[in-house]
Amino acid sequence: MKDFVIIGHKALTTGDFSLNDLPGSAGRMDILCRCINSALFLSHGMRRDVNVHLVLLGEPDPGKIVRFNGEQLRYLSPDERSSGSLIKKALEKDATEFESQSTPGVWIRRGGLEKLLAEFAGKNRSIYYLHEEGKDMRVMQDLPDDAVFILGDHMGVTEEEESRIKAVSAGTLSIGPLSLHSDHCIIIILNELDRRSGHQE
Amino acid sequence: MKDFVIIGHKALTTGDFSLNDLPGSAGRMDILCRCINSALFLSHGMRRDVNVHLVLLGEPDPGKIVRFNGEQLRYLSPDERSSGSLIKKALEKDATEFESQSTPGVWIRRGGLEKLLAEFAGKNRSIYYLHEEGKDMRVMQDLPDDAVFILGDHMGVTEEEESRIKAVSAGTLSIGPLSLHSDHCIIIILNELDRRSGHQE
Repeated sequence: MKDFVIIGHKALTTGDFSLNDLPGSAGRMDILCRCINSALFLSHGMRRDVNVHLVLLGEPDPGKIVRFNGEQLRYLSPDERSSGSLIKKALEKDATEFESQSTPGVWIRRGGLEKLLAEFAGKNRSIYYLHEEGKDMRVMQDLPDDAVFILGDHMGVTEEEESRIKAVSAGTLSIGPLSLHSDHCIIIILNELDRRSGHQE
Repeated sequence: MKDFVIIGHKALTTGDFSLNDLPGSAGRMDILCRCINSALFLSHGMRRDVNVHLVLLGEPDPGKIVRFNGEQLRYLSPDERSSGSLIKKALEKDATEFESQSTPGVWIRRGGLEKLLAEFAGKNRSIYYLHEEGKDMRVMQDLPDDAVFILGDHMGVTEEEESRIKAVSAGTLSIGPLSLHSDHCIIIILNELDRRSGHQE
């Protein structure tokens, strides 16, 4: 599996938001919805080897992780509203320290970046931090097919988060000469990995 | 300028659709909305050197072209609803053979793929057709910074459209080993062009 972690600093932690206003009513949930689309959709199917972990840090109950698992996922369409609706359903469940499934392939629990980083580090996974000042991904020689990629949202990544990530990361990557939105970065990362794995449909 | 042309075979040609249901009520308008986002947004601004031409071929009045011009564009946010709303406003205008502006940087007129291809060919622009069986973009030696890229939607491109495109195109390009949605292809194309132009922010 490849894992993408996206930190939503203002993303609401209750299902009490409107699908008609994901940017405003849900703390820029639209960004996270687009990341779901980028990480999981192929033209004719879904990327079954991808997990997406949304770290929701907004009000009223900060510190929830919603995980989309490509292998088991159902009921997801490419539009923002569709992923928004699955996130909303996940947030309507009572979250505990342990994952519980809200709809097929979507899981929720309490937690934050620190918890995820500790879990990935504990499994010896290679963790990469995405940042425009990182090393160009294309020239990286060893890039495992099961890497973990950590991305910020419209607010980037705080200094505290950055130092936590860097303490366990295998490196800082950039995806090109311009700074792009997280959902766009995910597309470019996956294209590079597809090329390296000699993927054939 | 770079130009992207996306053909929306079922995309509605009236503004009479619901922003709450872009996939269903508007003939998969959500696809075109995501292409607008992919082609125009940078992390800290907009791509001012990009035009996006949406070719709308759905009912009730097929054959309209909505153009988003990055240089003059205003009032666009990254979410699907935002581009959907600007498309809706454009479609609420009476379209003629000549472009008229509906909101800053968004233009509408009557027309289809044939008209666009003739205009680009008349200006000696290099036109590329995006298709999974094309030549890998990364190994193309000459790829002008002001190229035109033609993409299909969820239905691809019809045989008739394909032969029209190929009659004037400089080549058929692919963006990698897997077949991706058009909005994802646009991200990869622009990343390759950014790298080639030695873009610095």
